Amino acid sequence: MLHYEDFTPDRVFPLGPKTVTAEEIIAFASEFDPQPMHLDEEAGKASILGGLAASGWHTAAMLMRMIVDAYIGNSTCQGAPGVDFMDWKKPVLAGDTLSGRGIVQEARPLRSKPGIGLVRMRTELENQRGELVCAAEQVIMFGMRAPKETAA
Amino acid sequence: MLHYEDFTPDRVFPLGPKTVTAEEIIAFASEFDPQPMHLDEEAGKASILGGLAASGWHTAAMLMRMIVDAYIGNSTCQGAPGVDFMDWKKPVLAGDTLSGRGIVQEARPLRSKPGIGLVRMRTELENQRGELVCAAEQVIMFGMRAPKETAA
Repeated sequence: MLHYEDFTPDRVFPLGPKTVTAEEIIAFASEFDPQPMHLDEEAGKASILGGLAASGWHTAAMLMRMIVDAYIGNSTCQGAPGVDFMDWKKPVLAGDTLSGRGIVQEARPLRSKPGIGLVRMRTELENQRGELVCAAEQVIMFGMRAPKETAA
Repeated sequence: MLHYEDFTPDRVFPLGPKTVTAEEIIAFASEFDPQPMHLDEEAGKASILGGLAASGWHTAAMLMRMIVDAYIGNSTCQGAPGVDFMDWKKPVLAGDTLSGRGIVQEARPLRSKPGIGLVRMRTELENQRGELVCAAEQVIMFGMRAPKETAA
């Protein structure tokens, strides 16, 4: 299981691949972001996005799932206080396949809570043409190894 | 229909209310953020979140829906390039009712695309106890009124 101590600067965790279907784009948008370009192929083509495009928040949610599968699901993760930024660089269209990486930027102990550390992660996702579609940074909290584990 | 010109600094758009159910929390988390505190009441109680808690990305998605219902759904919205920050200030627990506001921070024309303007929005969500649970800022693109409309 991954602990705070395993998130050393520059360590890279591969993310994906995840292919996005029209059905998934429409299902997410119907519940959370019912704008025409996220619901209808023709409306998407007529928009600046150029096709049926995933809501940026759908991309964010898919990104989270890739992160859980890549490292959080097998870790001492204690949650995150937010996201420092998330840029939607290119549209994510139906049929696109996303993959990318999480890169450890820095790590430091959380002074107010002994045994917990803060890890700043940068996340990048590209489509099947290698175009960057999403970049984000956030701080994630992880539990540290118990002292005896560290000494062992 | 709301155009760029309607987003004047300090204008406030009320958001919500939206009550979050355990079923919604578990459904979102099962697909996008399958961590124990988002899937199981007991695991949530044992975590620092204190109960079955919505994924932060679920809160983000619900926030987006409130924004669509409040102003984007009846506007010339052309999308958004990302989010400048999103802070998850308090856990959103099953049964919580969220409401809040979008506040126009500033507005300026997008030089590279005539007829489009950029509006910086601050969004705040509180729970039924008036505690701030989420704060975010992002820039959203809106179409301007046609010159003849403005002159009319």
